[in-house]
Order: sequence, then structure tokens, then C-alpha cells
Amino acid sequence: MVPTPIFLPVGSQGTVKTLTPEELKDIGIPMILANTYHLYLRPGIEVIERAGGLHKFMNWDRALLTDSGGYQVFSLARLRQVNDDGVVFRSHIDGSQHLLTPELAIQFQEAIGADVIMVLDECPAHDDSLEKVRRAMNRTHRWAERCQKAQQRKDQALFAIVQGGVYPQLRRQSLEYLTSSGFAGYAIGGLSIGEPKQVTLDITEETAALLPEDKPRYLMGVGSPEDIVEGIARGIDMFDSALPTRVARNGALFTWRGRHNIENAAYSQMEQPVDSDCNCYTCRHFSAAYLHHLFNCHELLAYRLATIHNLYFINNLVCKARAAILDGAFSSFRDSFLAEYKTTDEQIRLKQKQKWLKSRNRSE
Amino acid sequence: MVPTPIFLPVGSQGTVKTLTPEELKDIGIPMILANTYHLYLRPGIEVIERAGGLHKFMNWDRALLTDSGGYQVFSLARLRQVNDDGVVFRSHIDGSQHLLTPELAIQFQEAIGADVIMVLDECPAHDDSLEKVRRAMNRTHRWAERCQKAQQRKDQALFAIVQGGVYPQLRRQSLEYLTSSGFAGYAIGGLSIGEPKQVTLDITEETAALLPEDKPRYLMGVGSPEDIVEGIARGIDMFDSALPTRVARNGALFTWRGRHNIENAAYSQMEQPVDSDCNCYTCRHFSAAYLHHLFNCHELLAYRLATIHNLYFINNLVCKARAAILDGAFSSFRDSFLAEYKTTDEQIRLKQKQKWLKSRNRSE
Repeated sequence: MVPTPIFLPVGSQGTVKTLTPEELKDIGIPMILANTYHLYLRPGIEVIERAGGLHKFMNWDRALLTDSGGYQVFSLARLRQVNDDGVVFRSHIDGSQHLLTPELAIQFQEAIGADVIMVLDECPAHDDSLEKVRRAMNRTHRWAERCQKAQQRKDQALFAIVQGGVYPQLRRQSLEYLTSSGFAGYAIGGLSIGEPKQVTLDITEETAALLPEDKPRYLMGVGSPEDIVEGIARGIDMFDSALPTRVARNGALFTWRGRHNIENAAYSQMEQPVDSDCNCYTCRHFSAAYLHHLFNCHELLAYRLATIHNLYFINNLVCKARAAILDGAFSSFRDSFLAEYKTTDEQIRLKQKQKWLKSRNRSE
Repeated sequence: MVPTPIFLPVGSQGTVKTLTPEELKDIGIPMILANTYHLYLRPGIEVIERAGGLHKFMNWDRALLTDSGGYQVFSLARLRQVNDDGVVFRSHIDGSQHLLTPELAIQFQEAIGADVIMVLDECPAHDDSLEKVRRAMNRTHRWAERCQKAQQRKDQALFAIVQGGVYPQLRRQSLEYLTSSGFAGYAIGGLSIGEPKQVTLDITEETAALLPEDKPRYLMGVGSPEDIVEGIARGIDMFDSALPTRVARNGALFTWRGRHNIENAAYSQMEQPVDSDCNCYTCRHFSAAYLHHLFNCHELLAYRLATIHNLYFINNLVCKARAAILDGAFSSFRDSFLAEYKTTDEQIRLKQKQKWLKSRNRSE
């Protein structure tokens, strides 16, 4: 049982980078995400299975979701050969060759033992043609059915993934097909992968509106504070993204007025915390000047403290959104948040995103 | 008030690498060391002074000792010009030129505000000639007196540093000179810098035996579990070294049977903790297989968990030594520890040490 809307920090390799499970609990995180692709390559599914599943292996006793590996195979792995059976790929670590099928994706995720598991999907690029996106969508549908058939454990919730790229007619077709098969939840995949933000929002809005109201609606790979608020406004219940933790390690800290880079010289003398109103461990114990110093010296504690702050911010944001929804006051909450929060310029954001997608840290 | 014997983890830049103050307290650490040299360069003395001292800046409310900068200037900094007045050096970070004198070393340490501060000393190399070592020793004596005169705060304990290299007659001369001036404590400097281990032990034994019994005796830069036990056997009360934290980040974990490298394939399947009898946070919560996986993936959590384990081990070791001393059973404690603990081969150790001294991480 987890409250929604919810943001899932990303722990691709069975660890939310820099943090212990206790710290995640102190922040108030109810659920995290891990990646089947990464865990299959390292430490290997059998190691996790022998440990009694990922909950035990990483010592996390709250809710856990695993991605199927689809997105990583299509974005991180090399030399892919896709056909209806599945996808043959080479590891981004050592080039070794592997096969992933819908049945294997389920088998791996049953061994990992998360509370929510995902179907294997084929993920086209954001600028692929309608024809290409349609073919990937149809294959995703066939794979979703095979995942459903392959599922043996009844204690895991299997979510389908709606594809269809930036084409509204495909999105509608995909969600109609998948919702007719009765999955435990529905994710919107293939967004926030380099397309303009307005497109992300429009497709999210149109898709979410047609998904069943009584099942969780999960927008994969989103994201930034403003995108989460906009997603909630469009009916999304679940989000995951490496952005809050990744930008934290680069010194970008969230505040209610926008993202600030702690490495700026202005912080070198600031005796107050980064955000005086913030109740996170970092802001309760350390000044901005100290955090600036740690970043300046490349001290590992810097990355921890910044990660704690950003995850606290995002978790607090979705908690406030939930309270506002329950109060019937979400619309004014959203307006006042967006009025205060200075977002990154769209052109710069898109450039940064596309640059990152090309040269990213391969582990999340 | 701190119990002795005591081991001080090294927090050169105002942070014991990877850990928060709370974690150090959970481990049971009563006192840590920071470096004037590093803090002077980054963030600068005035930043720490404005924060109200290093205790407040780094949020550490237990005991704190600062090294004077002498050792770092002579081992890390570049293009040194030493004369009786002081030493002109270039920063290892940006090459900028700076002056350090005994008076400045005290002024800086008074602003940093540690509980124990150290005199500025000149540190010769372990293989310098007797004449060279004698000159450095005599200068160290003159500087110690100037430090004593320069001291204005009465709430900080000023320790002298006995020099004299590997020459027993110089060591005796140095300690006789310094003990006649009535310092709050006495450190043995210029050891564990590349000389053979037996020389370290012999010089420690001869020097410690002649230091006042009612003042703390502090062996600087030591070290390994076996060296700490041997140092205690020779009357040493205080130790500091970056070794336990540095080797932790390289995957070397202390156990009562010796140092083990968690990156060895043998650990990939080990469902027990690294040391089943260990009561540290890491061993209570995680298997060796999980730790192996984190190291294998270069996850930052790996370095934290290994650091916690090694500091817990060393702190536990000195606590056990203290209990044995109070029971009048130290000699059998030492024998059984050394019988069980497999030390690194002396030739390999010396080679590693000299290699490290040349190419080390410049921040601790």
C-alpha cells in the first residue's frame, strides 16, 4: 500500500546512488525502482535469487518496482537485433551477447521479486516515423500478452506499458488494446526521451485521460519538479526518474524558487542552509558554505547530502500535491508552485537532455 | 575528555571521507583529525572562522585535533623554500604561493578552533642524512617555542612534535628539549613515512619510553591494526592515519584474521556479512555479496559501507586494548591478536607504501 501521487527514486543497480535504505526511509520514500537490465548483468539474477530476492539483497523492506529491461536494452545496450521472439543485445559493460524475451523478462523479475513488475516493451526513438513507431507498438502489445501468460507468481502486480510515441492516434490504439487485457496498472512509456516538453504534456494528458481511473497510471522517466506537478494535473499517479539524484551529484539543488547550483561562488560564504525552510537532514545540519566546500573538494559526502536534499524536496512535493488533492485545492497548489518555481529555459533543457541521452552515465 | 588509547580518523578537508558526523558517532568515534594545510587552501580560514569554527562548520561536537600543516607542506606542496622564519610553498591545487610560519600556524589553528592543536614542524624524508635531520630537528625546536609564545587561546591544548628521524640520539635530544618546555602533549612525528616497520617500532619504543607518563603520547600517521597494537604496547596513547579509510575505498576490509579484499570473486556469492561477528552497521545490514556487487559497479555506497566497517574495526580494536589494559591483560590481548591477524608481507607493504607516498590521492 503506497500513497499516490508518488515519486520513485531510481536504484538501477540495487542502490539509490550514495544512500542507504535507512536514509531513504528517513526522507520518507515509500517505493523505489530498480532495473532488471542492470541487475541481470551485475550481480546476475541467480545471486539475487539466492539472497531471497532484491528486497533482502539490498535490505529494503518497503515497496519496490522493477523495470523490465526494455528501455535499457533499446537505449544503453549495443548491437541490438529485434524480432518478434525478443531482442538480442550486447552488454554495455563487456560486450557479451544476451537474449531478452518477454518470458525471460518475467522470469527475471519473478526471481528479483519486486512488488510491481513491468512488461517487456520495444522503445522507439522520439523522432522515429509513424510506421516505425506503429511496428514497435504492435510488437509491444504481443509481448505484453506473452508477459501476462508467462507470469507465475500471483503476489506481484504486472503493469503494461502504453507506447505509440508522439502520435495521438497510436497512443489511443495502444491504451485501448492494453486496457482490454486487464493489467494491474498502466504505464506511459516512450516519453521524456528528447521530445519538446509541450509534446510530453499533451501526449500525457490525452493518454492519461483514457486510462482506467481505478488503476495506477505511471508516467515513466519523469522527472523534474515542474513536470511532476504537470503530470499530476493530468491524472498521473506514479513517476520515476534519475534526474533528481543525477543533478544532485552535479551540484544542482531544488528549492521552491527553482534549481540552484551549489558550486556557484555566491554559496561559498552562505552560513544559512541551501533552503532555510527545508526540513531535510542536509539543511537541518549543514550550511550552504559547507556544502559548497564539499563540492569544491569533490568530497563524496557532497553527493550524499545533495541527493538527500533533492529526494526530500521531490517527496515533499508529491506529499503536498496529495494533501492539496484531498483538500480539493490542487489547482491553486499547482498555480502557486509554478508561479514561484523558475524552470530551466526550454531550449537549454532540450539541449542538455539530448546531450545527456547521448553521453550519459551508463548506470542509471 | 577522551579515553585512551584512541585512534583519530582523518578528516583532512573537514569531512571524514564519505561519512556524516552522525555515522562517526554511531561507530563510537570520540575524536577526529583535520588538516590546517587543506582547510587553509579550501575553504579558507576566514570561512571557517565566520562559521564559528570547524566544529560548527562540519557539525562535529566531539573532540577535534588539527595538524599544523607542517607535514602536508613538506609532503604535498610544491617548490618549498624553508628558512628559519618559515616555509614558502606552492599549493598542490592551483600552484598559488603561500607562507606558513609558526605564528601563522597557531593563528590559523586558533581560528579553526580544534581542541588539540599542533606545533609547526619541519619533516625530513625517512632516508635523509643525520646532518639534514638534525638541522630540521633544531628548526622544529625553535618553531615549537615560537608556537608556544604565539598561542593566545587558553582553551586549546598545544602538542609538541618530537623529530629526529631514524636516529635514536636525535630523538632523545629532541624529546629532552621539548619536554623541558612543558607542552600539553607530545607527538612523535616523522615515522611511518617509508622506513622499514622494525625501525618505526624501535624508534617509537625508545622515544615513548622517555616521554612524560602524565601527558598524552601521540604517534602520528599510524596506521594499520597491527601497528596500533604494537604502538600501544610501547606506551602510545593516540594514533591517526588515513589508512583505514583509504584502503576501505579500495575494497580492503579489516577482520580479526587480517585484511580481505571484497573485490575478490570469492565474495560474489557470500550471503554472510564480511565478518559475521562484527557489530558494525555494514555487517549488521548487508551481505558480503551485496558489498562485492557495489564495489564491482563502482557505486558510491560501497565506499561508505567499507569505511564504516574499517573505522568500526579500528575503534573496537583500541577499545578492546583499553579494556585489556584496565584488566592488566594487555600482553595476552596483544599476543592473541597478533597470532590471529595475518599481516601484509613486509616487502609488499613497503613497496605499496612508497608507491602510495609518490602517487597518492592529494586530499588525505
